[in-house]
Amino acid sequence: MRGLFITIEGGDGAGKSTQIRNIEGFFARKGLVVVHTREPGGTEISEKLRDILLDSGNTEMEDVTEMLIYAAARAQHVREFVMPSLEKGEIVVCDRFVDSSVAYQAYGRELGDMVAEVNHHATGGLKPDITFWLDIDPKTGRERVSKMGEFDRLEMEELDFHYRVYDGYKKIAESDPGRVKRIDASKSIDEISKEIETYLQELCSERGL
Amino acid sequence: MRGLFITIEGGDGAGKSTQIRNIEGFFARKGLVVVHTREPGGTEISEKLRDILLDSGNTEMEDVTEMLIYAAARAQHVREFVMPSLEKGEIVVCDRFVDSSVAYQAYGRELGDMVAEVNHHATGGLKPDITFWLDIDPKTGRERVSKMGEFDRLEMEELDFHYRVYDGYKKIAESDPGRVKRIDASKSIDEISKEIETYLQELCSERGL
Repeated sequence: MRGLFITIEGGDGAGKSTQIRNIEGFFARKGLVVVHTREPGGTEISEKLRDILLDSGNTEMEDVTEMLIYAAARAQHVREFVMPSLEKGEIVVCDRFVDSSVAYQAYGRELGDMVAEVNHHATGGLKPDITFWLDIDPKTGRERVSKMGEFDRLEMEELDFHYRVYDGYKKIAESDPGRVKRIDASKSIDEISKEIETYLQELCSERGL
Repeated sequence: MRGLFITIEGGDGAGKSTQIRNIEGFFARKGLVVVHTREPGGTEISEKLRDILLDSGNTEMEDVTEMLIYAAARAQHVREFVMPSLEKGEIVVCDRFVDSSVAYQAYGRELGDMVAEVNHHATGGLKPDITFWLDIDPKTGRERVSKMGEFDRLEMEELDFHYRVYDGYKKIAESDPGRVKRIDASKSIDEISKEIETYLQELCSERGL
């Protein structure tokens, strides 16, 4: 049986890493094989592309270039890691996926429809079974992150950009409510964890897991 | 006045480098500023992407990944180097451009229409003023190259692939004869140079150069 593909989305400081560990724990307790991965990255080639994307020296990088590098890293990740894992019946938990590109590049960088179009080719049409959007106000998110040390190139972008990204996530969630679950990330970690587990339990029941 | 954008295409061993020098000489004799560049590459970011593409260790690379990395390198090259040079009125001579992606990825790798679609976004619609396709039989081309030392990852692909690429170039030339000039690359260097110069002189007359 094909495994489950679960993605987690949200701005910086939304608490994605904590919830990925929670999701891993949920499936591990059921005795299922769960692997976690991240984008951009997750394969050797994709990590090399990630280095180019996050290198704060690359200040000349054009928006379209950035979008295409993300898509390239994703194409490799989907084909070399995500699909083979799903075909083995594993649960794949991925930190960011296509929704990040749409939110950051189509909305944040204002590249529009080309982002979804290019990513459709990159993923070969693969969609997550469920996506958790950790919804946090961009300003609150930035404040949480700024306590965590040096910013990388993307993190240096101004707040305006992050509000456009936020608006992007909102539109994605509204347009695909069956897949994308909005989680209020201003709640306590315990409350968030329980809400996510409820959705996961529902999904497992549907799939007989 | 906007400069001229000239691209040179053809399989390995077609003699592109020699003809690039010839084209440079032609414009230099007219006292025009001519710059030459190459794809993938031509900017710092694009050269980093080139390294990933040509690294023979990256044997896991998926075809769609490869296509998207080429497009990313091109997006950066067009915006950071080609367009600004053309806007300064310079003559830009480029070793490979979109036609290479269509020939190698759409035809060679059989990725089809997505290649032209993605590259349209990568270039923002920029097209060369003239393109020289140095037409050489793939087998003859391979033989010329094999005398030149070690092969890189792309060069190791088998002859079948190169025949599909060849077929791609033929179709491109047939579909856009105003822009793409087929040059019989089995002729002598002198004959080829003269043929190219005739086309260039014609283009210069049209543009008042």
